[in-house]
Amino acid sequence: MKAAIYHRPKSEDAYAYDKDTIHIRLRTRKDDAHEVMLIYGDPYDWAGNEWVTAKKTMTQAGADGEYDYWFVEVKPPYHRLRYGFEIKAKDETIYYGESGFCDTPAKDISDYFCFPFMNQADLFTPPEWVKETIWYQIFPERFANGDHSRDPENTLAWGSAPPTATNYFGGDLQGIVDHLDYLQKLGINGIYLTPIFKAFSNHKYDTIDYLKVDPQFGDETTLKLLVDECHKRGIRVMLDAVFNHAGLYFPPFQDVLKHQQESEYSDWFHIRQFPVRAEEPPNYDTFAFTPLMPKLNTANEAVKDYLLNVATYWIKEFDIDGWRLDVANEVDHAFWREFRNRVKALKPDLYILGEIWHNAYPWLQGDQFDGVMNYPLTDAIFDFVQHGKSATTFQHAVTKHLYSYPKLVNEVQFNLLGSHDTPRILTVSGGNKKLVKLSYLLLFSFPGSPCIYYGDEIGMAGENDPGCRACMVWEEDQQDQELFQFLQKLIKIRKTHQAMGTYNTLKFYDSGTEDVLLYSTSAGGELLLFAVNRSKQKTTVKLPDSLKSLAFVDVICESPLQSEELHVEGECFLLLHSVDANKRGQVDK
Amino acid sequence: MKAAIYHRPKSEDAYAYDKDTIHIRLRTRKDDAHEVMLIYGDPYDWAGNEWVTAKKTMTQAGADGEYDYWFVEVKPPYHRLRYGFEIKAKDETIYYGESGFCDTPAKDISDYFCFPFMNQADLFTPPEWVKETIWYQIFPERFANGDHSRDPENTLAWGSAPPTATNYFGGDLQGIVDHLDYLQKLGINGIYLTPIFKAFSNHKYDTIDYLKVDPQFGDETTLKLLVDECHKRGIRVMLDAVFNHAGLYFPPFQDVLKHQQESEYSDWFHIRQFPVRAEEPPNYDTFAFTPLMPKLNTANEAVKDYLLNVATYWIKEFDIDGWRLDVANEVDHAFWREFRNRVKALKPDLYILGEIWHNAYPWLQGDQFDGVMNYPLTDAIFDFVQHGKSATTFQHAVTKHLYSYPKLVNEVQFNLLGSHDTPRILTVSGGNKKLVKLSYLLLFSFPGSPCIYYGDEIGMAGENDPGCRACMVWEEDQQDQELFQFLQKLIKIRKTHQAMGTYNTLKFYDSGTEDVLLYSTSAGGELLLFAVNRSKQKTTVKLPDSLKSLAFVDVICESPLQSEELHVEGECFLLLHSVDANKRGQVDK
Repeated sequence: MKAAIYHRPKSEDAYAYDKDTIHIRLRTRKDDAHEVMLIYGDPYDWAGNEWVTAKKTMTQAGADGEYDYWFVEVKPPYHRLRYGFEIKAKDETIYYGESGFCDTPAKDISDYFCFPFMNQADLFTPPEWVKETIWYQIFPERFANGDHSRDPENTLAWGSAPPTATNYFGGDLQGIVDHLDYLQKLGINGIYLTPIFKAFSNHKYDTIDYLKVDPQFGDETTLKLLVDECHKRGIRVMLDAVFNHAGLYFPPFQDVLKHQQESEYSDWFHIRQFPVRAEEPPNYDTFAFTPLMPKLNTANEAVKDYLLNVATYWIKEFDIDGWRLDVANEVDHAFWREFRNRVKALKPDLYILGEIWHNAYPWLQGDQFDGVMNYPLTDAIFDFVQHGKSATTFQHAVTKHLYSYPKLVNEVQFNLLGSHDTPRILTVSGGNKKLVKLSYLLLFSFPGSPCIYYGDEIGMAGENDPGCRACMVWEEDQQDQELFQFLQKLIKIRKTHQAMGTYNTLKFYDSGTEDVLLYSTSAGGELLLFAVNRSKQKTTVKLPDSLKSLAFVDVICESPLQSEELHVEGECFLLLHSVDANKRGQVDK
Repeated sequence: MKAAIYHRPKSEDAYAYDKDTIHIRLRTRKDDAHEVMLIYGDPYDWAGNEWVTAKKTMTQAGADGEYDYWFVEVKPPYHRLRYGFEIKAKDETIYYGESGFCDTPAKDISDYFCFPFMNQADLFTPPEWVKETIWYQIFPERFANGDHSRDPENTLAWGSAPPTATNYFGGDLQGIVDHLDYLQKLGINGIYLTPIFKAFSNHKYDTIDYLKVDPQFGDETTLKLLVDECHKRGIRVMLDAVFNHAGLYFPPFQDVLKHQQESEYSDWFHIRQFPVRAEEPPNYDTFAFTPLMPKLNTANEAVKDYLLNVATYWIKEFDIDGWRLDVANEVDHAFWREFRNRVKALKPDLYILGEIWHNAYPWLQGDQFDGVMNYPLTDAIFDFVQHGKSATTFQHAVTKHLYSYPKLVNEVQFNLLGSHDTPRILTVSGGNKKLVKLSYLLLFSFPGSPCIYYGDEIGMAGENDPGCRACMVWEEDQQDQELFQFLQKLIKIRKTHQAMGTYNTLKFYDSGTEDVLLYSTSAGGELLLFAVNRSKQKTTVKLPDSLKSLAFVDVICESPLQSEELHVEGECFLLLHSVDANKRGQVDK
């Protein structure tokens, strides 16, 4: 049993949740332990030679294929904590602390784990508003053309051709302003725009001027109008900061190409060898291996000043609400720490979202980002809904994932089913709209803020880049209105039910079949029960025993549940709302 | 086997060792795996749809009671790495990556762990000189009285009384200057002074003025003289920064006591309730529960400015070489990051040493400290030499400890057998000098820089504070000259043998008895073999089979080893040096 037990102090296993509360988690091998207690005390609280400790029962809060995850919170009165674990298994009770395992409680305080002091300066405080946000991602060149005077040369008629890596349709900021009513009707309250600064390509990830709105998209007045109009409607605006690399036509890089070692910008990049040449293979560090995107040397003070000035400029002058950081994992941590200090000093509730596809804990300790683009959740959803992996696999993947971050990170993650970097959800679903709906239901029920990629709400299809970057369809008869209404409804449910989304506690049940995911979310005495059937067959699952005392109402059709059997149509779901307020205590467990 | 396997990206398990090299470690349950391979590649290196990977064998580099530790280093040409593990056990081969385990190598790159980019700004570069340093810790009030004009009131005659928490003997900086020849004779090349700034008590951990040498100890001229004289002799000087808390008589705190909420310093501390009163129990945060040491609010900009100015002042004006940070674990990480940036900007090879007694990885990632006071090593040594725990227990504790930090941290740890906060080594050893010698041998043979607490080298005894703070004995006939010479010799061995200390690779062998610790250290083709017998009985252990082809010389008596049996006297050791340069390759394994 010992070898699988794991706890790591000052990590996702032990962190300050707020100024007074520490969350403690412990991992044991699945089914090994039946009870776990936290033994804890103030490191300086002694009665003679005896360290004064207390005990608190930990909850078995989750399980994946290998492990059980135990959880408890404590509020140390002097903000200091030393602690260890008492782990009871069938045949033995063992004690676990920093120095390892023993058969009796350790006497020496140095055998215990330590959380030395809960300093407020280190407290991780992601913006509250993100927890209530439904995002909508826009790829500006393809959302709406609102100002033809800004169309680049060779602009094609809207939607007249498939999207390619090099064609233009004239989408711009005015186009977004023109369609804010549409977005409001959908119900979203956050917009994430891929880059809008002057750049060469249609995706604008190859910046030329970080301090200028791309003239194809508008100017500073249009951006101001957009942000103001959004704010008036309670919609936040997040821009995309491409700080890992610049574009080939970024003047400092052009200067290096021209003047080589003599350029005053020669240290702005990672030049491997002079003379630098902008051809394949590049002899300078780049994004991936493309000569078009020279990596910026963010350790150079001048580069740092330049980029941090960019980061603050758009906040100061345009009052943006968030920065999404492109290829954030390849930029140095030191830069991001300074970035956070600078932007948070200016706007404490600005959302800092890193583009990181893998485990991002090293960036999510409170000193760098607030959240990351939560692709691992996307993958778990697709594996269950579209790729036929079992409900158990989903439960295990999601549990493992949630326990790899502090709860306060999970609450503000950026959850998505797709982006400008992936195939669209309808395409991933093989054109099956029912599976799209199941995917959104899962996305909206989980902690974190969900995002809709423009056009997905009206059933646009598209393979990976450039396919997923087609022109938004504005002809109503070509929009899938039924899907739009479904998403409207989901957004409304999320806004009206606290148990839907970030604030909830998640619990999985055995549905009796690997085709049906059965889980509940609860918050504030309310419970929602989800039965998600990804098979084509109508399936009946039983109400979990622990929920039989509750009365349920179907949230979609608003009729009460009449039996203990849940009949779920093929590729469909049931969403039930417990209305029995008296059972509050039971529900919260 | 799966449940015990562990790897954590961007941690002590995966870190940049230098600008081109990544160290990767993996933990498996003891004896589960017989071969582990790293599967790795550049995340952007694809041949069509196929990610291009290579394989490299990992070394089983250590083991403790529960786990085997596997190690490999890689040098990714583009400073980017994705990787996973192939783990071969008796009955199965499994593959392990970020998404978990599978039976065949994962096809999806997102299933692999990620080290996105080795940014130089994040590179952890502890000062090289520390690796070559033998420290000597001085408690200034008790080392030597070199200037009677500075004696505080009621100063007692040197050594005329046992040390108490409140008595004074007039030790000062001039006293240290006067005895530099002595320290040079011993062979040390680093001095760590407990606090020397103006304070109330004899230990000076309750600062009154951070910008003034305590007048009992000297003035700025004396300090300058001390540092200059040290530097002339190749001795580095480290001072003690007490930034967690101030003293009761720190003027800002006195101002708060006087003016309460109205004081301009009211936010310099953590006041729990006004009116503040300096009595027990304090109604403000303190070190432990003592009203004499009000905790500083290091999140307050004015406090930060003040303390960072202190930190840089003593470097700029006095050219000190290190800061030891008192109660470092209770100060916020954000403060220490700024501290590091500020002092390293001024003096890049300044040594930052945190006082942390427990696992300190959260402070040792390159953004805060270089090393910590390595008490867990102290404990492991005492458990074996003085407390009768087995050689196996020692091996397990030390291995676990070494694998809880990156190698580059282990190389500059501050290793010690005692300090002003513990009983003296002779007292811990029950007055048995032989055990003192064994302890020092272990200390000096390990990675990290060893420290001698003043007086321990001449056999001073003393219980914990205040007992361990007695006046240094300067009468030669009362000094244990033999112990002094032993330490002289040990220092010389450490300086002349690369395999002694920081640069080595450690390997443990089964000695056949739990009373004898048998291990080798190797570096640069040289191997040292240690047989440390903590029992009273003369014991014979066999030369490990893998070393039989080497020729050994006894380092102490300088005679060649004649047999394959090592005869070790009771409470004594053998230190053998392999002189067979031809076997270099074999030795390094």
